[in-house]
Amino acid sequence: MTLTTAQLTISLDGFLAGPDQTLDQPLGLGGEAMHGWMFADERTEVDERWREHLARPRDAYVMGRNMFGPVRGPWSSYDGEWRGWWGEEPPYHAPVFVLTHHEHEPIEMAGGTTFHFVTDGFDAALARARSVGNGDVLVAGGASVVRQALAAGELDELRLEIAPVLLGTGERIFDPTTMANGLEVLAAEHSPLATHVHYRVVR
Amino acid sequence: MTLTTAQLTISLDGFLAGPDQTLDQPLGLGGEAMHGWMFADERTEVDERWREHLARPRDAYVMGRNMFGPVRGPWSSYDGEWRGWWGEEPPYHAPVFVLTHHEHEPIEMAGGTTFHFVTDGFDAALARARSVGNGDVLVAGGASVVRQALAAGELDELRLEIAPVLLGTGERIFDPTTMANGLEVLAAEHSPLATHVHYRVVR
Repeated sequence: MTLTTAQLTISLDGFLAGPDQTLDQPLGLGGEAMHGWMFADERTEVDERWREHLARPRDAYVMGRNMFGPVRGPWSSYDGEWRGWWGEEPPYHAPVFVLTHHEHEPIEMAGGTTFHFVTDGFDAALARARSVGNGDVLVAGGASVVRQALAAGELDELRLEIAPVLLGTGERIFDPTTMANGLEVLAAEHSPLATHVHYRVVR
Repeated sequence: MTLTTAQLTISLDGFLAGPDQTLDQPLGLGGEAMHGWMFADERTEVDERWREHLARPRDAYVMGRNMFGPVRGPWSSYDGEWRGWWGEEPPYHAPVFVLTHHEHEPIEMAGGTTFHFVTDGFDAALARARSVGNGDVLVAGGASVVRQALAAGELDELRLEIAPVLLGTGERIFDPTTMANGLEVLAAEHSPLATHVHYRVVR
């Protein structure tokens, strides 16, 4: 049985990133503050447990082009080969299916990560990811890809790390397209820097 | 020392009420589903504890006119005396300061509740509420009054009952005016129907 999940850090007011996202500030204005639970010098035992769950190995990943790259134009507009911003050994160690409008050969990285570029939409990327191993797939982000997964009713579980941060504006995780999903709370834990909630998606 | 708090049930996507609020459907389309944790036939022990906290006695309350009434026009437009929709013995048993644009004498109800009508704004209503007893004040709602309390930096604590419900659109609890507040998670518990989170507001 395949398992399709997402695990995301959001602000209490529902943003995955603040306003004014740039290459230097990919989480937007104020967005880094949400991730204090993960990057604190001494993580609490609770925060560490949820971070380990996020980092556990999966069979495959689906992500948007901005999370890979970003690749904003055709590949020919880049000098040399653009291999994303995850470094030579990305932390995935599995196939990663990247949604993009521009075709490209797969890029094999060190440590078992191969980026595959999918130009025929979210459903096609998810189907390819589910065909790997046992089909344990993480929809890694960004916001648009997670919204597509929710809108398509394809998530089995959703883990949210709700940071006690108010960003005011920015990129929302939920919008009217995502509301058809029923959710049930399976678990919740907290540290001063996050409320971790594990939802089952009921279709 | 005074204590000013709010305790609200919201959807996971941040709405206090769904779209199309009417007198017959004050929580808007889909909004009632958020309150399942409170109105289930058999409440869980966790849900019951948070409900009891919401219902505990306070020295005074601040609420918006729609939560009292609603009083949408001058009082003279009503036949007879309009005494709100809480019945003859409202569940407050204390002074309730109602924000409105239309002056009215206080209305004394059975059981110790007196509705006072305040026409000079949120700060004035809060000051009057804080002068009662020890100043243990609940900002009861609706969304606009809670947003004013957050925007003014006047909340000491915020308890959110985050229902695993996505409404898509409706009346938001947070907006850009509320983002100046720092929050810290003091406690979190869950049932299948809600994640209960207790925040301290850091100014």
